[in-house]
This record gives sequence, structure tokens and C-alpha cells, in this order.
Amino acid sequence: MTNKVQIPWQDRPEGCNDVMWRYEENPVIGRYHIPTSNSIFNSAVVPFEGGYAGVFRCDNKAVQMNIFTGFSKDGINWDINHEPIEFVAGNTEMIESEYKYDPRVTWIEDRYWITWCNGYHGPTIGIAYTFDFKTFHQCENAFLPFNRNGVLFPEKIDGKYAMLSRPSDNGHTPFGDIYISYSPDMKYWGEHRCVMKVTPFEKSAWQCTKIGAGSVPILIDEGWLMFYHGVITTCSGFRYSMGTAILDKEDPTKVLYRSQPYILAPSTQYELTGDVPNVVFPCAALVDKEEDKVSVYYGAADTVVGLAFGKLSEVIQWTKENSL
Amino acid sequence: MTNKVQIPWQDRPEGCNDVMWRYEENPVIGRYHIPTSNSIFNSAVVPFEGGYAGVFRCDNKAVQMNIFTGFSKDGINWDINHEPIEFVAGNTEMIESEYKYDPRVTWIEDRYWITWCNGYHGPTIGIAYTFDFKTFHQCENAFLPFNRNGVLFPEKIDGKYAMLSRPSDNGHTPFGDIYISYSPDMKYWGEHRCVMKVTPFEKSAWQCTKIGAGSVPILIDEGWLMFYHGVITTCSGFRYSMGTAILDKEDPTKVLYRSQPYILAPSTQYELTGDVPNVVFPCAALVDKEEDKVSVYYGAADTVVGLAFGKLSEVIQWTKENSL
Amino acid sequence: MTNKVQIPWQDRPEGCNDVMWRYEENPVIGRYHIPTSNSIFNSAVVPFEGGYAGVFRCDNKAVQMNIFTGFSKDGINWDINHEPIEFVAGNTEMIESEYKYDPRVTWIEDRYWITWCNGYHGPTIGIAYTFDFKTFHQCENAFLPFNRNGVLFPEKIDGKYAMLSRPSDNGHTPFGDIYISYSPDMKYWGEHRCVMKVTPFEKSAWQCTKIGAGSVPILIDEGWLMFYHGVITTCSGFRYSMGTAILDKEDPTKVLYRSQPYILAPSTQYELTGDVPNVVFPCAALVDKEEDKVSVYYGAADTVVGLAFGKLSEVIQWTKENSL
Amino acid sequence: MTNKVQIPWQDRPEGCNDVMWRYEENPVIGRYHIPTSNSIFNSAVVPFEGGYAGVFRCDNKAVQMNIFTGFSKDGINWDINHEPIEFVAGNTEMIESEYKYDPRVTWIEDRYWITWCNGYHGPTIGIAYTFDFKTFHQCENAFLPFNRNGVLFPEKIDGKYAMLSRPSDNGHTPFGDIYISYSPDMKYWGEHRCVMKVTPFEKSAWQCTKIGAGSVPILIDEGWLMFYHGVITTCSGFRYSMGTAILDKEDPTKVLYRSQPYILAPSTQYELTGDVPNVVFPCAALVDKEEDKVSVYYGAADTVVGLAFGKLSEVIQWTKENSL
Amino acid sequence: MTNKVQIPWQDRPEGCNDVMWRYEENPVIGRYHIPTSNSIFNSAVVPFEGGYAGVFRCDNKAVQMNIFTGFSKDGINWDINHEPIEFVAGNTEMIESEYKYDPRVTWIEDRYWITWCNGYHGPTIGIAYTFDFKTFHQCENAFLPFNRNGVLFPEKIDGKYAMLSRPSDNGHTPFGDIYISYSPDMKYWGEHRCVMKVTPFEKSAWQCTKIGAGSVPILIDEGWLMFYHGVITTCSGFRYSMGTAILDKEDPTKVLYRSQPYILAPSTQYELTGDVPNVVFPCAALVDKEEDKVSVYYGAADTVVGLAFGKLSEVIQWTKENSL
Amino acid sequence: MTNKVQIPWQDRPEGCNDVMWRYEENPVIGRYHIPTSNSIFNSAVVPFEGGYAGVFRCDNKAVQMNIFTGFSKDGINWDINHEPIEFVAGNTEMIESEYKYDPRVTWIEDRYWITWCNGYHGPTIGIAYTFDFKTFHQCENAFLPFNRNGVLFPEKIDGKYAMLSRPSDNGHTPFGDIYISYSPDMKYWGEHRCVMKVTPFEKSAWQCTKIGAGSVPILIDEGWLMFYHGVITTCSGFRYSMGTAILDKEDPTKVLYRSQPYILAPSTQYELTGDVPNVVFPCAALVDKEEDKVSVYYGAADTVVGLAFGKLSEVIQWTKENSL
Repeated sequence: MTNKVQIPWQDRPEGCNDVMWRYEENPVIGRYHIPTSNSIFNSAVVPFEGGYAGVFRCDNKAVQMNIFTGFSKDGINWDINHEPIEFVAGNTEMIESEYKYDPRVTWIEDRYWITWCNGYHGPTIGIAYTFDFKTFHQCENAFLPFNRNGVLFPEKIDGKYAMLSRPSDNGHTPFGDIYISYSPDMKYWGEHRCVMKVTPFEKSAWQCTKIGAGSVPILIDEGWLMFYHGVITTCSGFRYSMGTAILDKEDPTKVLYRSQPYILAPSTQYELTGDVPNVVFPCAALVDKEEDKVSVYYGAADTVVGLAFGKLSEVIQWTKENSL
Repeated sequence: MTNKVQIPWQDRPEGCNDVMWRYEENPVIGRYHIPTSNSIFNSAVVPFEGGYAGVFRCDNKAVQMNIFTGFSKDGINWDINHEPIEFVAGNTEMIESEYKYDPRVTWIEDRYWITWCNGYHGPTIGIAYTFDFKTFHQCENAFLPFNRNGVLFPEKIDGKYAMLSRPSDNGHTPFGDIYISYSPDMKYWGEHRCVMKVTPFEKSAWQCTKIGAGSVPILIDEGWLMFYHGVITTCSGFRYSMGTAILDKEDPTKVLYRSQPYILAPSTQYELTGDVPNVVFPCAALVDKEEDKVSVYYGAADTVVGLAFGKLSEVIQWTKENSL
Repeated sequence: MTNKVQIPWQDRPEGCNDVMWRYEENPVIGRYHIPTSNSIFNSAVVPFEGGYAGVFRCDNKAVQMNIFTGFSKDGINWDINHEPIEFVAGNTEMIESEYKYDPRVTWIEDRYWITWCNGYHGPTIGIAYTFDFKTFHQCENAFLPFNRNGVLFPEKIDGKYAMLSRPSDNGHTPFGDIYISYSPDMKYWGEHRCVMKVTPFEKSAWQCTKIGAGSVPILIDEGWLMFYHGVITTCSGFRYSMGTAILDKEDPTKVLYRSQPYILAPSTQYELTGDVPNVVFPCAALVDKEEDKVSVYYGAADTVVGLAFGKLSEVIQWTKENSL
Repeated sequence: MTNKVQIPWQDRPEGCNDVMWRYEENPVIGRYHIPTSNSIFNSAVVPFEGGYAGVFRCDNKAVQMNIFTGFSKDGINWDINHEPIEFVAGNTEMIESEYKYDPRVTWIEDRYWITWCNGYHGPTIGIAYTFDFKTFHQCENAFLPFNRNGVLFPEKIDGKYAMLSRPSDNGHTPFGDIYISYSPDMKYWGEHRCVMKVTPFEKSAWQCTKIGAGSVPILIDEGWLMFYHGVITTCSGFRYSMGTAILDKEDPTKVLYRSQPYILAPSTQYELTGDVPNVVFPCAALVDKEEDKVSVYYGAADTVVGLAFGKLSEVIQWTKENSL
Repeated sequence: MTNKVQIPWQDRPEGCNDVMWRYEENPVIGRYHIPTSNSIFNSAVVPFEGGYAGVFRCDNKAVQMNIFTGFSKDGINWDINHEPIEFVAGNTEMIESEYKYDPRVTWIEDRYWITWCNGYHGPTIGIAYTFDFKTFHQCENAFLPFNRNGVLFPEKIDGKYAMLSRPSDNGHTPFGDIYISYSPDMKYWGEHRCVMKVTPFEKSAWQCTKIGAGSVPILIDEGWLMFYHGVITTCSGFRYSMGTAILDKEDPTKVLYRSQPYILAPSTQYELTGDVPNVVFPCAALVDKEEDKVSVYYGAADTVVGLAFGKLSEVIQWTKENSL
Repeated sequence: MTNKVQIPWQDRPEGCNDVMWRYEENPVIGRYHIPTSNSIFNSAVVPFEGGYAGVFRCDNKAVQMNIFTGFSKDGINWDINHEPIEFVAGNTEMIESEYKYDPRVTWIEDRYWITWCNGYHGPTIGIAYTFDFKTFHQCENAFLPFNRNGVLFPEKIDGKYAMLSRPSDNGHTPFGDIYISYSPDMKYWGEHRCVMKVTPFEKSAWQCTKIGAGSVPILIDEGWLMFYHGVITTCSGFRYSMGTAILDKEDPTKVLYRSQPYILAPSTQYELTGDVPNVVFPCAALVDKEEDKVSVYYGAADTVVGLAFGKLSEVIQWTKENSL
């Protein structure tokens, strides 16, 4: 669907033994990147026309949440529109939305699909498609409220669209597991199955409060590789870290591997401080299989966008060797 | 679908000016009606083969929640099976269920459909059908958790099945509005719309915490008449009362009338005391339009089943005259 | 201000050793006493024109809270208006009110003053006066929200009006002490002082969660006798009981005596069950000093009105002998 | 230790199929049984001098909690002292106590031991012994706060005293499992082991919030039979029911059988209403093995004492057949 | 009342497009500015005798909250007394105070008035006056507890003193709107009106949990300009930002303009970290209308004092153009 | 037991007037000090074989909590084992442990004793001994759950082992006082006494939510000097600071002095930010009485280990002069 482009990348720093490492110039996108923004984070990026397009969560200075398009040659330097996306009707006339946040983007068959947390009497999963990142067609919300972190698979599975999501409540939900649902047509959804639940505290505490899908799953030999977030509740609130899992290709409800340790957790100044301290929240991954590279875009401290790199084969290997 | 049968009935007692009144022999079904039961309540009844069939919530003495079939000639005296319903696969092989409660039953086209609160990693809406109240075919759950009070319309609307439900959380949910969803096939659901929300405290406090669909909607000239429950939070917990609403026939998201006062609220000993004090929870209504009668089955105090009567025309009139 | 009238009374039943006892025909006013009412409780009564007038809290069947006038020859049999009080402007044009509940009434100098919990962006203390129980003049709210249980002294103290009240929050407040405030003019209030606080659990648990003024204080030789309510939090919510206290005549911030035991607590069916189980909530007292009688009107279970009797001298004696 | 006396008893009523049934004259002890009492419940009884002695929880009308001795010829008609027990120093000089409630009594070797919930900077387990129910020697508290429901075994196990208890918090604890601890000398305690935990909601919901030991364990052929309480959280608070378990004789941490259903749950007026609705709370059992009888004293609604009967062999059989 | 003095000022940094900007040397007052202090923040400053005087919240190292005077020539370099203010009786003998924090200061007619959060059985609004910042006369508390953020208008309105305040509860209040009250004499207060409420989340989330008055209102042509704080609840607690509003001159209950975006929000290291992360809390503003300057003192992270600058005309213009 | 070794030390920096000051190279142990660690903090150090040994809390990258041995020549540069301590049976076979954290170490008579927070159906106090920091013998848990911060005295008191601890609940406990318990044999514990409770908010707010023992008590002329932590609840969670107290030598339940101010509170970047912001948590102290030095190891932000220094005599003097 897109031409080969160089994904953003830096080699592993000397002396670093971590399976993934951060971009040295992080945050790659600052909080005031566009004039109205209070913060830009939890955003999604895909290859597009020899470069990259993205859908960005920009909270404005009234702290209204909305999503914006942006374009980049290199995935590092971004032009983000100053106005949020305006949607036209897709498979529905009902395109009400009180707020939009935490977008994901994926190419399926013939177009780009965007999912996001859509405010319709509470948070649920909004869906839209675009062919050109200019006109966006909003579709029926996938689910009843309350839901967050809806992430589409980049291919139909058994002839149906498949979406991961996390049923929630209407606040700072203190629970959350990952489910999968299927749709023949991107309008009606069913066959809901539980995929991954939180872990017992003593087994893997960083993901014991709630978990949610992050990047669009990546098809590898072993199945679907996904970067997801996990949350632990400290006496100062939630701490969000990033882990990896590999789901079965044919039946993604089968979790083949799931990392017991996190692969990235808040430890830099821009992850430890900001509007919400201690958040690493992955929303997109770029992969270059030939060069064995994966680059993950993640929200940091609900304030800025960070970028982390890894060798794809090492990430897979690490996931298998450190599986719960 | 069924022959005309006499619905259970008592005339309005002398001196009573209420639009609905209770069956004198209430509770019509006691808590120990079957040997294993701790309580029987929140249950559904339909005309069947010249009498009535029902699906009953019987919590056993381990306080495990399950649903049971029962049969009656007159809607008053019931034979309830001592074993819960066992389901065979309907449109899915996945018929896991940790618990089942609060059933509703309706005839659509060629069969009886049962919906209930189904335990699948939390409460969601279970669906099954039967032709004969002997063999029950369990279908895909309608929604992701967490949801309760799924109630089907007795006819397709615009060619699709339609279901009311109340998105919830995983506990004694302190919020709750009524939504509608549509399905072409009882497997995939979408087009979710908000129908009715809780009321402001100062306008109608009995329904200011949460509301949920009760009986299967009844088609009348004005549209769909429904008996629903509303909840207020007192300093001793929730109090459940019953109200009425009339939805537009073609577009049930349009609420034409909705009762500001309750039509029945806990005030008898069997409603004020029991496993959960102060609960009136309607789950089924029998209608005889020719005789202008409606009989509502409701759970009382989460312990027993009560029966209340009204003149259908008066209930409709009252709803229109006392509308919010 | 009023002629001597016989106060409602029954002698202490044989075998009863309690300092106060209940009216045998309790509840003296039932929940459906007027056609629209869901419940009638927490109401106030004063001698008026050779009989009695009262201001009653009647929640209607939409559970909207409002106050209604009523009249009685004997304090037992009541005619309560079917329409709530409509107020005209008193010392303010701002007579907004989202709801009204828990009224108290007292005669001061030349007129009857009514106080109640008034909904103005949350509960606060509403004030009005009437000369005839026909026309009611609403005045400025005494305080900022959030407040409840405002009770006026029946005489000016040191030339100023004096009011007891209980600062609260906007819900089922889990704390609450009794304060006094003074006003030169019933419009501006100040000199706020703490009068009585909740007790330590191990000293007097029935009043360890919150307390609030009940009846208008009664001037006796020792000072001001008041019937107040105290609350304990059980694992099923609040339990409201009634106690007595005697405040210094000149400086009512001085608590001379305060009952360690309750004087009346929920134990009858109409106190143990109802819209809110386990509530005894005094709002008015009639006194006949010559006959050494006191009759207390109290709300029972937030549903009905009860009546309890005592010999005034015994109540005073008991209060002094059982003081904290 | 005591002479054979007839235990209180009524035969199973006709038509009753329950394994245990209630005393027809229940409550056997009313709330106002002594002049100062607000309620009498959660109390313990043992054979004593050809009749029975008991230690009773009597909350007074200030709702102060304390324990009182009582004596009875038949276990039905009780003389309860009007003054609480005064303790002298046992194995400690530190006999501080802010409150005392929920006593249990057992004979071990040469004396009666009383345990109760003792207020020492929060609830913990108080211990005392008496030879004659006249002089009571208070010993060191068994544990640090916070703890409740300390119940001694009637024999040393492996040469040590053994006590069941339930670690708690300082309020209406929303969790609670049963542990065992051992002591060589009734002064120092250790070897703490978890015995029984709450059950999963879907397996046995009546005991899914917390559980606590009830009566002193009864030595039977199979091991130690105990009546315990289990709690479910409804939207109106806690509901306490009674179950049975059999522990291994030598190693009581081994639970041989544990009833999935309750054996008695609140369903009568005196269990459904009172200071705390919906409580059945066993604290003592009298056994006549020859006559195959067991009589259980239980607190009802935190207000009165109830009595329930069963055939010992049937209770054991039922426990084994209905085990989790 | 005071001579013209130069207010603290720095010009807008190059490249900065914000309507307000920070002092480069921030924090202007550090946490250990006096020997005993743990933190100095939420403090008030006024022109005084050719320079400035201030009343400072200094929490000491026992984290006791008290208020201290300070003096400065330039508003930047401050001498803060090492001992807290000692008050003498003003219009009351009752000058009890468990703690004092968050002072505001304003000149009215002939003297300086100080208001603060005063601990009297919970937080309420303390009032005092001084002529010389040496002797302080404490007056009656304005209101019953619980209240915070009492801010006087610098002129009488319609012949009466006017005060903004925020009714609260006794903890980290999770709600809060701004009210106004009037007093003829600084002793009795009434005519309480709601001025500004929190905003809907989707309209302006930074001020959706609670709001409170900040600086003393500034009289401008349009009415009263005020800097206030707004709070959003994140999953790590509260985040405090600063906004602006303009109230009608004659009737300050009329909100003419209110900023939808914040004008300053936590984003520097000294605002993002400290005793309470993510707090910007304005308490005072200095204005030079001739030079079109406004300088705002604000508490940062409940730890230090920050200073921010703006062109008065631009702030007004921005408020009007960005009004809700 | 050990040879004299130089304790880690830096002289007080110029211009510093604080009674204790930080090590300039802090954090002395970083979060990634061993390959698997996410964080290293709340750890204990003792003199050992001419240098130092320590027991370190290292949470791994799955955020599993465990304790590790480490060795150092100078107390600054540490070799920490990469594998957690494996225990052999001490005075019990029951050495189950779901997690281990917050160790303390002390020498008593002939061996080193380690106590820690041990996961056995919730947190309780684990005990072990070692002679050589190679083989560790795990003993019976001291108490029933829920408990934390168990700290042994370095000598028997009145012939018995003595331990401080803080009864807790199973989460981020919002309360907590320090108790003492005694044991004749390190197996059975009793004689539980309350030692120190939280302070009233207005007296010393930094320690008003909960307190817990920190370092092993140090025997000085005045009695037992201890460094402990105190917690205040802000609107962003808990803030942990360090204080000092001196207990009576013979009867440590007598608190002779207790610091009203904290002696060290979070104010550096590594204390203000990290996995849990705003934590200073002492777990060990090294003393050189001849040189009048004390060096305290403390966890910072639940992420790293900090080191603070003081002159022992000054710390004692300061404690006495700043006592509550």
C-alpha cells in the first residue's frame, strides 16, 4: 500500500543492554507544537505517500481533546494541522462526538482506518476511514459506552474485521482487560472474547490494575506482535508502562507469549513529570522487517510524544524468553 | 403465536385510586418455591400453549444465580423446574456462563427469545432462543461486558432486531442509562443510541441514580409502552421503583412520554424487607388489549415475585398526563 | 401568641419504664395522607388559633421534596393542603428553590418563622415568615450551601436572632456538628460558634457520625431544652436516633447537659422499615408546662410521622442524670 | 467438666425439610431484656453447674458495647446481670478496653476461657478466664489490632492452645478470611496460618465478601465441626448468613468439608429488620451427642438472640454432601 | 492609599506568543526563604509605603500552616518575618485559629483587609484588618465551615462589603463553585449568590472539578477582572491552572466573560514537582494601568511563589475573545 | 560483633544549617544498579567483616518485589547480588512468601536478624537470621496479616526480643500507628502495646496520616533513638518524610521525645520524582559514636537509595528541643 520509506531510527547507545531504547532527542513532539495545544501525546503514525501521516491527540488550552492530522518526511519532524479533523458521514449519519482522543491508524485493504476514544454519552470507540488524510468518513461507533483503546487488526481475520478494545467505566477506570470483537462490515460487532486479563500482583505488578492495546498488531512469523500498556496503582495514582505480547495468527484470543517484565517504563524527566506523571503509553509502531527495526511512538506523561527503538527480532526473542 | 388466554387479574380494590394496584395474594411466587432456592425474583413470563411459560431467576442457597423454566395454566400457580436451563449451542460454540440472572422473554416471528444478564468476565447480555421451552439454543453475547437489563423488542424495527440495554460496571453500578442497539442477525450488534438518561434529582428523584428497561415493550397506538425501573440512592443504599415510558414506534430513540412519578414503589412488607430491601423491579408484562388489562410481574426485595395490575388505557393515559 | 390548647397525649403505658413512649396509633400521619404523596415525615407543628398548624414535608410520587401547610384541632387528625406552599418575596427578591424539606416552625415576637433545607445550588437554610399560615414571605437564605437542620430559637438572644444549623456537604453527609449563628435582622448572619460535636464511638456510639438540631429549643429553668438527632454508621447505612440536651440560657454555646443514651431509637416496624430504614428524626415539640407534658413529632423511616410523649420534668431530670 | 443437662430443643416442624430450623419462640432473648440494653445479640452459652452460663453482648442505650454474664436452667429463660463483667488482672496488668463485643466461651482443661472483640486502639482479640463466672481474669490481648472473631478450640492441639481469628481493619471491614494461631501459654501467639478464605462470587456468593469463625469448634469423628458466618455485599450493605465446615482434627488448617450453601440465612422478621438488617451471626453451639442434637445461638439483625436446632448427624452429613 | 511604585516586570520574551509569561528568575520566593519554612506559596502582595507588603503562607517543617508578613522594595526581593502574625481582637473576642493559609490582602477605604482560610473546626474564612502591617485585628469569621478562598472586593458594592468564596468540605474537596456574599459591617454576612460554577468536561476540562477566586478583583472599564484557579482531576490527583473572568461592575453575580482556555498552567519544573505536583494557584495581582501591566503572584506546586506578567489590555482582550 | 569501620560520611556543606544533610553524590544506589532491577530502595545496611553488608529491596522489571544481599567496603560502592536471597527453614517449615520488601537488619547477640514485609495472604512481618549473609534461615512470620515495617530492637529488653511494627490493611493503607510486641523465642509474640500514634493535623501535619518505624533503634544515653517515617495525604497522594524519636530504654512504650518537625523531607529531584513521587523512607542507620556521626540510608521516591548525614549529638539535641 505504501512505498518503502526509511523509518525513524537511532542505533542502540553504547553500554545499553535494554531491548528497547529511547530516541535521544525525545520528546519527538513537544507539548506546544501547535499554537493552541496544551499537550500532544498518545498519537498514531503510518507510512503515507513516501513519508508519514499521523493522527495526533492535541488537547488544547481549554483541555478539550481532539484529533489532528499531521505529515512528515522522516517521522521525526512533523507538520501538524492547526485545526482538528472534521468528519463527514461514513456508514452513519450519527457522527456526534463530545471529544476525541487516543487515536490509532491502520491500513486495511484499500484505505486507512482510524479508531479513537469517542465521547458519546461517555467514552466509546469511534471509527472512521480516509483514503488521503484529507477527507475522513466517520462510521458507527463500534460499541456501547464505556470503552477505550480500540485497536484494529491490519488484516481481516477469517473474513471479518477484528478489533481489540478495553471495556471501561466513565472515569479513571480502576480495572481493564483486553477483549477482541469481530465485524463483517465495520458497522455491527459481535463474537466478543476476552483476550488478556490483568496479572496477579505478585506475578507482574506493573500490569496488575489494567491493560490496554497499544499499537496496531504487527504480523510476524509467530503471529501478531503487539505493544500494549499496563498499569499499576501506586499511592500517588496510576503508573503506565509498556509490554509486548504475541497472539496467535488465526485465533488472536490465544496469547502465545506475553512479557512478564515491561519493555519500557517511565524513567526520564519527560515521562516522570507532566500533566500526568509516570506514563508511557504506546499508540503506534513502524516496522522495517528487512532492516529488523521497530520504532514505537508513545505518549509520555500525557504531555508529549516519545519515540523508542528496537531490533524487531530481539523484541520477539525477548518476548518469548520473558513470557508469563 | 399463542392462543388467547385469560391473563392473571384482580379488579382495583375499592377505595384505591392508584393507576396500578397489587395482587392481594402477593408474593405470587415465594422465595422457597423450589427446594434449592434462596429467592425467586426478577423473572419473565409469556403466553405459551394455552397457558404461560416463564423463565425464572432462582438464586440457590449458595446464592448462585441461574435461570429456570416454569409453566402455569393461570399465571398465578407455577411449576418451576428444579434444575436450571441447560443450553445447547445456537449461533456460537462459546456458551460459557459464570452466572445467569434477570431474564426477559419475548416472541419474535417464529420463536421465543430469552435475554439475561450473563456472566462472561463480568455481566453482559446473554441471548438464547427456544421453540418449546425444552431446548434452548444459546447465541453470542450481544455486547462486551459490562452490561445489564438487555430487553428485546417483540418485532424487528426497520428489518433489524432491536435491543434496549444498560451499560454498567462490574459492581453495584452507581450510574446507568438506557441505550438501544440493532442487529441484522442476532449475532453482530451496532447503531448504538442513547434512549433515556437519568433525571435531575429535583425533577424526579426516584430515577436519578440509574434506570433500566424492564418488561418487553408493548406495541400500542402511541408507540412502544415500557415498564422500566428507576433507582434513587438513599443513605441506606438503592431504592428501586417502577415507571412507564412510551417510545416512538418507528424510531424508539424518541421518547414520547416518560412518567415523572413512579407508578409503583416499594411499600409493602415483602418489598420493604428481604435480601435487598426496597426493590420493585419489573421484568415482564402480560397484556389483554380487548379487556384493557395489563399485568406486570416484578421482583420484590430481590427475594420474591410480585404481580401488579392496571387498566391498559389508564396506564397509557396516566403516562401521557404525568410525563416529564 | 396562641391560646392554651390541649396537646396530643397518652399516658405512659403500664409496665413501661422508658422516659418517653410512643403514641399507640402511630404513625400519626401515614405516607399517603394526601393524594400526591409518597411519604410525609420530618415535619413541624405549632399551636395556632386554638388548635395547631403545621408545615409538612411531603415528597410526591416523583420524589420531589416540598413543604405543605396543614391544620388540626387536636394535633392528631390533620388536614394537609394538597398543594405546596407558594412563597412571596420577604426581605429578598431571590426566592429560587430547587427543593424544600425538613421544615421547622417557631413563633418569635410577632410572627411565625419557618426554616427548612432549601435547594439553592445544594442544600442550605431557607427562611420565611407568616402571620396566618396563608401568606408566606420568603427571606434570604441564612447561609452559603451546604447546610441542613437550621433551627431558630424562639426568642432573640442578646437582641439578636439565633439559629442552630449543621454544615454539611452535597450528599449523604458522613459528618456533622451543631453550630449557632446570630443575626440582627434575619438577613445577615455571623458570630458562628460550634455548639456540640459528635461523640467518640466508645462514649456514645449512637451519635458518633453526625448530629443535628431537631425541635425548636424549649425554654426551661435550666436553659434551652432541645431534642436532637444523632447518627451512627452501620454496615447497612445510617441509623438516626433522638437525644436531648440543655444549653445555657444566655450563652447557648455552653452545653450544660447532653444525654449519653438516646431517648428514642428505631425499634417499631414503621421506624425499622420504609423508604430509609432505621430513622427517628425529631422536628417539633409541643409543651404544656402546667401539665408537665411534652409531645415530640418525629419522622420515622423517612416515610411517616410518629408522635412520642414524655413528662417534661422527667425528660429534664433524665437528661441531667444521663449527661455525657 | 459439666453435668449432662438437657439442651434447648424443639423437633423439626412438620413439612420442614431444612437441615436446621428455628426455635418457634424466637427471638429467645429480646433487645430490652435488661433495663439498660438497646440490643442483646452475638452471645455465647456453655453448660454450667447443671444448667447454663452465658456471656452476652448487651449494647446499652448509649450504644456502648460490653459483655455481661447470665445464667439459665434451660438455655431458654435467662437471668442476665444488669452490670457488665468487671475484670481483674490475669497474665497481664494491661487490661485497658475501650469496648467489648461478640464474646465466645469455651471450657479448656480446668477453666472457662472467654474471647471477645476488645477495643485497644482498634478492635483486637481479648482473652480472659473464669472458674465460676463470678471472677474473670483478663489476659494479654492475643494479637495486634485489627482483628475480630477470635474463637478458641476447646482442646489444646499438639500441646498448644489454638485460636481462629479474622484479621480486619478499623471499620466495617470489606474483606476477611479465617486464620489459626497457636500459643504455648495464652500469652504469646504465633504459627499463624490461613485456614479458609472467601469464595469466588460465582461459586458461593453468600460468603464471598468475608467470613469469620462462629461457635467454638465441636469435636466429631470427622474432625472439628464449626458454624461460621459468611457475608455478601448487596447494594444495601452486608448480609450475614451461617454455614458449616469440618476441619482436620490434628491439623485444623486442613479444611475437609465446607458448605457451599448456607445452612441458615436471614428470612424472618427479626432477622430482616433491626439495628442492622439481614444478619444471622452464630456465636455458640450446644451439643448433645447422645441425642444427636445441636442447638446454635446466633445474633439476629444485631438486635436479638435467636436459636436454631438440628440433628448433629444430619448437619454433618449435609456438610459433607454439600461441600465446595 | 499608596504612592505609585514600579511593579515587578519583565517584557515578553522573544518568540513568546502567550498572553502571559513567567518571570525568568522564578521561583521568586523559594521554599526555604525563612529558616523554619518547608514551603512558601499561595501568598498575597499589595503596594505599601512606596514599596510592597505581603502576607505569606509559610508552612513550617512540622507542616503547620501559618501566615507571615513580608516587605519588599521591588516586589521581587522580600524580607519575610520569621514569626507568624499575631492577631489582636478586632470586632470579636473569638480569635481561635487552628491553622491559617492562603491569604489575600486588599485595601478598602481606610485600611488593609486580610482574608485567609482559617481553621475553626474545619476550614472557613478568617478576616482581619491592619493599618500598618504591624498590628493585625482579627474579626469574626465570615462564614460557617467549610469554606476556602475568601476574596474581598476592593470597594464596597452598593454600600456593602462583598466577598467571593468557595463552599467546601473538610478534606481535599472534590467539588467547588464561586459564590458571593455581602456584609454591611464585616461581621454579619448574607445575600449569598452563586457566581460561577465548574464547566462541563467537554467544554473546558481544566476547570471541571472545582474553581476558586484567586487575586483581588481589579476594577477595569468592563467590570471586575479576576484571576481564578480551576482544577481538573487526573488519575494522579488534582491539577490547578489559572484562568480569567470579568464580572459586572454593579452586579458581580453577572459573569460577562470567562476564559475557556487557561491563561497559565503548570509546565515548568517548579510547577510540575514539589510538595503537590502540578499546581498554579494565583493569590494576588499588581496592576499598573498607565503602563498597561499586570503582575500575578501564584503558588507553584504548593511549594514556592511564582510571578507571571501580562499586558493588562491584552489580558482583557484575550478574556473577551476566548470567553466560554 | 564487627570491627570498627569508617562509616560513609561527608561534612556539612557550607551555608547549610540543617541538622541533617544529603550525600552530594546521591542517589548512592541507582535504580538500574543490577541488570534486572526496576528500582532499588528501602534497604538496610549493617557493618560486616570490616566493611558492610546489606539487604536490598530490588523490584525487578516485572515489578516483583524481592530482597537481595549486597556487600561494600565503604558503604557507598555496593556489589549487590543478581539473584534474590533464597531461604532455608529456620524455626518453621512454612516459608511461603508471595513477595518480600522493605527489609531491616540488626545484630542481636550472636547473629544477624532480618525482618521484612512478607507476602503471606497479604503483607505481614517476615523474620530470618543469618550468620554470614550467605545462608538465611527463615522463621515464623511474627504476626497475622496485615502488617508492615517490622523493626527489631538490637538487644533483648527484659529478656525478650522486642519488635516495632505498624498494623495495616491490604492496600495503600490510609492509617497507621507504631506498636511494640515481645517474644521469648522469635516464634510466639505477645504483650502488644501502642507506642506512637499519628499526630493531629494542626500539630504536625507531615505525620498525620500514618507513621512507621524506620531504622533499627540506636541505644543512646537517653534511650532508644529511632528514625521513622511519617506520611501526609495531599491531593496527589502520600508524601513520606523522616522524623526522629527517643524511646525509654527500659520501657520503649514511653516516648520521651518525638520531633514535631521532620528532619528530612522530599525536596531533591530524585526524591520528588520517580516511581512514587515525594518519598523519603529511612530503613537503616550507621553510627559512629566516637566520631559523633550518624548516616541514614533511605529510599527515595520508591526508586533509589539516598544517604543523609548528621552529627549524632546534634540529632539528639534537635530531637529534644523540637519535641512534640
